[in-house]
Amino acid sequence: MKPGALQLGVAPPTNRGIAILDFILRLIAIAGTLASAIPMATTTSQTLPFFSKFVQAKFNDFPSFTFFVVASSIVSTYLFLSLAFSILHITKANAVNTRLLLLFLDTVAMGLLMAGSAVATAIVKLVHSGNSKFNWLAICQKYNNFCKRVSGSLIGSYTGVVVLILLTLLSGVALSRR
Amino acid sequence: MKPGALQLGVAPPTNRGIAILDFILRLIAIAGTLASAIPMATTTSQTLPFFSKFVQAKFNDFPSFTFFVVASSIVSTYLFLSLAFSILHITKANAVNTRLLLLFLDTVAMGLLMAGSAVATAIVKLVHSGNSKFNWLAICQKYNNFCKRVSGSLIGSYTGVVVLILLTLLSGVALSRR
Repeated sequence: MKPGALQLGVAPPTNRGIAILDFILRLIAIAGTLASAIPMATTTSQTLPFFSKFVQAKFNDFPSFTFFVVASSIVSTYLFLSLAFSILHITKANAVNTRLLLLFLDTVAMGLLMAGSAVATAIVKLVHSGNSKFNWLAICQKYNNFCKRVSGSLIGSYTGVVVLILLTLLSGVALSRR
Repeated sequence: MKPGALQLGVAPPTNRGIAILDFILRLIAIAGTLASAIPMATTTSQTLPFFSKFVQAKFNDFPSFTFFVVASSIVSTYLFLSLAFSILHITKANAVNTRLLLLFLDTVAMGLLMAGSAVATAIVKLVHSGNSKFNWLAICQKYNNFCKRVSGSLIGSYTGVVVLILLTLLSGVALSRR
């Protein structure tokens, strides 16, 4: 414990500081997940000739991209709702049960967001490289803008994953300092 | 705090109980990750005719399956090393810094294992269903045993993910009860 903490009584300012940092990080994570879900959900390519038919590539041609959009949306909704608890922790720095609840839900949300980001990354890799052994052709030469947009969409969601890992650690520190 | 806890002094038995449960859960997670990495890493199909050439399907034809094996192996190694801290927490129930370290590393390990499991699931889905719009043929009709084995391999790793989420929560409870 730092020397100054003793003079300030029951609620150490460190835990309030953690709660404020927690609130700011949640805002960043909300921005990241929205910035990944919205561009992915609105991605549609031009209609281009492909194997003697005309085909328009859409994000929901790949179930993994649909899962990515659903996962990012759920996590950003959860993060928005969790702001209420985050504000509660700023005013009530010694709360235990709500911190434990957020620790658990943050971990689950991180897992869900990581799953969505990872499957989308796997499919981005496949649409870029294909799989020559099984004659799965790469489609990025033709649908270049489509590929750029779905790749870019991943940045926000990985930012969200990193922020959620930090939030878990912050909850642990706050719980240990009561 | 429960009425009984007050009489038992500095180290509440609940934290020792948590440490023992933590140790058992880590053993289960090690079993799960090994039971997923080893079958996947040794999966090779028979050589079968495919598009007028003879092809043998191997797990490392798909970078996502290779990533799955690497991720599961890293996490099972980490879990094995973390047993040392888990034993330390059984003897020293009030440790804070090592619990915070494990909380952080468990969360990162869960993210890594979830990423590996999710990309492998995405590819399992694709080898089962293919993608008709882009002429990616499903390969499971031919390589049936290959597909069964890579699918089965996922059970262990998802068990590991669930156990790691529980371990994070246990660390939080132990930190709040000092």
